[in-house]
Amino acid sequence: MLPLQIHLTLPPWIGDVVDADRRYEGDEERVGLAIALSRQNVEHGGGGPFGAALFDADSGRLIAVGVNRVIPQGCSVAHAETMAMMIAQQRLGRHRLNEDGGRYALAASSQPCCQCYGATVWAGIDELLIGARTEDVEELTAFDEGPLPADWIGELERRRIAVRRDILRDQARTVLAAYGAGGAPY
Amino acid sequence: MLPLQIHLTLPPWIGDVVDADRRYEGDEERVGLAIALSRQNVEHGGGGPFGAALFDADSGRLIAVGVNRVIPQGCSVAHAETMAMMIAQQRLGRHRLNEDGGRYALAASSQPCCQCYGATVWAGIDELLIGARTEDVEELTAFDEGPLPADWIGELERRRIAVRRDILRDQARTVLAAYGAGGAPY
Repeated sequence: MLPLQIHLTLPPWIGDVVDADRRYEGDEERVGLAIALSRQNVEHGGGGPFGAALFDADSGRLIAVGVNRVIPQGCSVAHAETMAMMIAQQRLGRHRLNEDGGRYALAASSQPCCQCYGATVWAGIDELLIGARTEDVEELTAFDEGPLPADWIGELERRRIAVRRDILRDQARTVLAAYGAGGAPY
Repeated sequence: MLPLQIHLTLPPWIGDVVDADRRYEGDEERVGLAIALSRQNVEHGGGGPFGAALFDADSGRLIAVGVNRVIPQGCSVAHAETMAMMIAQQRLGRHRLNEDGGRYALAASSQPCCQCYGATVWAGIDELLIGARTEDVEELTAFDEGPLPADWIGELERRRIAVRRDILRDQARTVLAAYGAGGAPY
């Protein structure tokens, strides 16, 4: 009998630390939430120090969040960004978020890995907002981030996905450094 | 209240068309199953003409299958390959399939897109077996397959993932062509 389904969850503490009704204005508030989620994921022992959040880019409404769930869920696909994308799509009932004519922003505490990079191409996202760079992740933790196209930003921009990075980069690096040092308190 | 979970399923007809107890010997039998799944997914009106299957590479035991579920599930991540990987990982209870010392093969009816390419890097797969090429997909259907690293095969091989392609390529192209022509019968 082949298994035919997948069930993935975010941790229950998300409800305690995220203000779902707040409007998140501007890139720093949006990436700031993703970084806060990355920090909480480490503090709760949930696995990789990565967080993401998906917003209606115009109103600042929060659609969904994600944290890395690879270890607790036994699922290599369950990165912060893919969790946020999948939950946002199920919430809005469509696989391309912006096919309603709206604009959507994905904020990530660190630059997406090779898997999540590819996933952003299909998700119907208009803006990718990034905290730490891949070189920060690889400098401060043991994570490999995988191979990307040489002109990874240009490839997204040609598909009408704006990329802005180094947003609260130092703050994002602080979480990575604490994780890399073995979960020292902040 | 933020949604905190994702539930993805394969279609119920999978149980009728896949012999879960058979041993699949060799690349052609393995990619052949992935292509059969791609054909069935089109015939059942399930969406994209893509199938995948994940095997214990040494014994030929089938661990999990996947078909493209983007449209029925409203989920851009739910490609055939990611479905097969996630279900296999949940079945075996670990996010890196080969961390038990076994060897695992992912067979895909077509070359993985940019998202699934990246996902293969993390899944604990030892062999990637491919039917049709990306240029076949883009020639015969309207799908964009997304940007890859220039040396995408070398990047996998450096991570100890063997890549073999053009396996039953003509058969895989036939499904793509029928899909591209609007679902004509086979």
